[in-house]
Amino acid sequence: MTPPHGPMAALIGILTVSDRASRGEYADEGGPAIRGYLADVLASPWEARERIVPDDVEAIAAAIRDLAAAGACLVVTTGGTGPAPRDVTPEATEMVCTKLLPGFGELMRKVSLEKVPTAILSRQTAGVCGFSLVVNLPGRPRSIRECLDAVFPAIPYCIDLIHTGHPAPPRLETNPARLVAFRPK
Amino acid sequence: MTPPHGPMAALIGILTVSDRASRGEYADEGGPAIRGYLADVLASPWEARERIVPDDVEAIAAAIRDLAAAGACLVVTTGGTGPAPRDVTPEATEMVCTKLLPGFGELMRKVSLEKVPTAILSRQTAGVCGFSLVVNLPGRPRSIRECLDAVFPAIPYCIDLIHTGHPAPPRLETNPARLVAFRPK
Amino acid sequence: MTPPHGPMAALIGILTVSDRASRGEYADEGGPAIRGYLADVLASPWEARERIVPDDVEAIAAAIRDLAAAGACLVVTTGGTGPAPRDVTPEATEMVCTKLLPGFGELMRKVSLEKVPTAILSRQTAGVCGFSLVVNLPGRPRSIRECLDAVFPAIPYCIDLIHTGHPAPPRLETNPARLVAFRPK
Repeated sequence: MTPPHGPMAALIGILTVSDRASRGEYADEGGPAIRGYLADVLASPWEARERIVPDDVEAIAAAIRDLAAAGACLVVTTGGTGPAPRDVTPEATEMVCTKLLPGFGELMRKVSLEKVPTAILSRQTAGVCGFSLVVNLPGRPRSIRECLDAVFPAIPYCIDLIHTGHPAPPRLETNPARLVAFRPK
Repeated sequence: MTPPHGPMAALIGILTVSDRASRGEYADEGGPAIRGYLADVLASPWEARERIVPDDVEAIAAAIRDLAAAGACLVVTTGGTGPAPRDVTPEATEMVCTKLLPGFGELMRKVSLEKVPTAILSRQTAGVCGFSLVVNLPGRPRSIRECLDAVFPAIPYCIDLIHTGHPAPPRLETNPARLVAFRPK
Repeated sequence: MTPPHGPMAALIGILTVSDRASRGEYADEGGPAIRGYLADVLASPWEARERIVPDDVEAIAAAIRDLAAAGACLVVTTGGTGPAPRDVTPEATEMVCTKLLPGFGELMRKVSLEKVPTAILSRQTAGVCGFSLVVNLPGRPRSIRECLDAVFPAIPYCIDLIHTGHPAPPRLETNPARLVAFRPK
């Protein structure tokens, strides 16, 4: 088996979940916002694999599994986390993850709640699928940035831990002028 | 099929969960506290359907399902959220809901924790059952008001979202002098 | 059936979850930190039963069940709550508990987050197994103390509630100079 990560670049999956964007009726804003954020904060080599799927639990689950199997150390989703009938991104995430990380959702709702009282309607979560950390984000670019600013400091170390014992673990480094990643001594 | 909501009044279910109140050994205080709160904050037409059931997971689940099937856009429970053997309201809520909304429980525990350290013992949650938002509240009237003050600003918009695509969605309006409901632009 | 608790001393299970400590490769620091904390705050008679198990979900689950069956009113675990492949203490806890108490994990992550941004990686939870309150703690002694300082004020009353209707409930009392346990009137 070849190592799931190349020697140079960490693979990061960006998964936009939206019925309208997947039909081309609507320009995806969430995916580009995530890509721009990563370009801004990451200092180590990385490449993105981007996918757009409709708000369908099986399609979302399959896309997360595919990105994890392709070697993504991080899969970030955008959209589909609310209470509307078609919002099923958290359910798909729970389906494919062997471990859930409730602290991500708690903290993202907490920082969003400082802006809008409807932050409690977000059901976003995070978990581990194979060797991938999966993190659900909201759909709006501004909310994406607020949530990533809150949780990204813990993401590089989380990816280290997920790869405990892995022969070729990826290692994400951030630009400390933009965002300080924390790794306990 | 007739629309589940009349043209004028939003139906709201108020479900008291208490062995003693259901046997008439104890005057229900939670149900009247919720009714009084709603009368105080709601500015749009509404009517209540009130039920009292014992702390039995099947009885609670059946009552929530019945209220949802009767067209309630909101079902508020009171009681049965602690760690005692007979406290099973959250389990019944999880049984009947297709989506859970962990942000409600997190925020209600957070505001209660400012008052008492035992707030962490409350297991209250919220979720979506059909076209109904189900919210668990504590049993004590003062705690009910504190919790509703925290989460009610998000409830009208949550009900809007749950009814995405519904032919006759209810629309809750609040008295802004008492409580401002937030709907993102 | 004899009452599960002796007339004088409350039994408390202390469960260290660690592959290395269970093989004797590493001195357990978490168990002694918990024992020291309890000795410091408890004013009523108690005795500890200590176990060390590897990071194996079945071994952890069996140890919690054994301690609960032996009459422990409280089972405190240390270790195995992170996102690494071998971290499965929360899964074992969820397997054996009939009720979960999400407020414990929320509050412990909140207080840890004031110290380190990686606090969101902890998946620690709490729940009820038989007549035992089970609480997951982190592995590091300093984090153990921070978490126990946050949640212990609610633990004696939680144990009271779990024993509602029990013929010989234990009653934990704390040294108020060190930690005030809260019991609502």
